[in-house]
Amino acid sequence: MGKIDQSKLPRKTGSGYPEPYASMMNKRSYLQLGDAGGLTQFGVNITVLEPGGMSSMRHWHMNEDEFVMVTEGEVVMVTDEGEILMGVGDCASFPAGVENGHHFLNKSYAEARFLVIGTRAALETVYYSDVDMMVVDVDGAGVFTRKNGSPMPEPE
Amino acid sequence: MGKIDQSKLPRKTGSGYPEPYASMMNKRSYLQLGDAGGLTQFGVNITVLEPGGMSSMRHWHMNEDEFVMVTEGEVVMVTDEGEILMGVGDCASFPAGVENGHHFLNKSYAEARFLVIGTRAALETVYYSDVDMMVVDVDGAGVFTRKNGSPMPEPE
Repeated sequence: MGKIDQSKLPRKTGSGYPEPYASMMNKRSYLQLGDAGGLTQFGVNITVLEPGGMSSMRHWHMNEDEFVMVTEGEVVMVTDEGEILMGVGDCASFPAGVENGHHFLNKSYAEARFLVIGTRAALETVYYSDVDMMVVDVDGAGVFTRKNGSPMPEPE
Repeated sequence: MGKIDQSKLPRKTGSGYPEPYASMMNKRSYLQLGDAGGLTQFGVNITVLEPGGMSSMRHWHMNEDEFVMVTEGEVVMVTDEGEILMGVGDCASFPAGVENGHHFLNKSYAEARFLVIGTRAALETVYYSDVDMMVVDVDGAGVFTRKNGSPMPEPE
C-alpha cells in the first residue's frame, strides 16, 4: 500500500491473443500498477503505445466497467462513432454491457501513454467488434473462441 | 460511454461529514467523472485541492480498494509512515482492509488535483485514523458513528 515505485515496475510486452492478433500488439507494452500496489478488485495499468501501436483489438466487456485517462502524448480512440483524438488529461468510460467496441491507436510520432482501470469480474465475456473472436468463461478462466463458439487456431 | 466532456462537469463542494470535520473540507472540491461516464462498479473522481486543502479525514476502507494518481501540482500524502510528497504522475494504492489510514494535503501555493478510483462495495465500513468517527452500514446506507457505535452529534 502507499506510493507505488514506478521505477521498479517491469515493462510487460506480449499478448494472450491468438495469431494473427497477438503480433498486432507488438508496439504495445504496459506497467501493472494495481498489481504492484496490492489491488485486486480492479486492474490498474499504464499502457504504453509506440508510434503505430494499438492498445487491443476493438472490444467491449459484458461485465466489467472500464475507464481510461491519457497521461502522455496523443491517442486516437476508435468506437462505433468513429475516431476521436485524445490528449493528456482526456478521459473515456466504457460501462459494462454497452455494445460499442473501443480501442486506442497511436497515430503520432511520439510515445503515448494512458492509465486504464477495469473491474475484475468473477466471470467475463468479451466481444471483439471487427474480427471473429470473443472471450468466454470456461471454469473460471477466459478462453478465446470464434463467435460461434468454435475453437481458435492453436498457436503456431 | 466514450470520451467524457470534462468542461460540462459541475465542480462539487461540501462534505457529508458531521462537524467539525465537514468545515475542514472547505478547500476541497471534486469532479465526478465516473458517474458522468455511466460507470457504476467503481467511482472515478478528480479531487481539487486549493492551497491549504485536505482531501478527507485520514481513513481506511474495510471492503473497497482505492487508487490515486496526481494529475496537477503537488500533494503531501499522510499515512502511518508519515508524510511523502507526490507530484504529477505519482500513484498510490490502498487495498481494502489494510489498517493504515491515508489522506492528501495541499501544502503548496498552487492548486493540486488527483484522480481517485474506489470500488463501490455493497456494504462498507470506514475507519478514521485520527478522530473518533467511523462509517458503518445501516440498511445499505453508510452512517457516521463514534467508534463505540454511539451517534455523532446532529448537524447544528
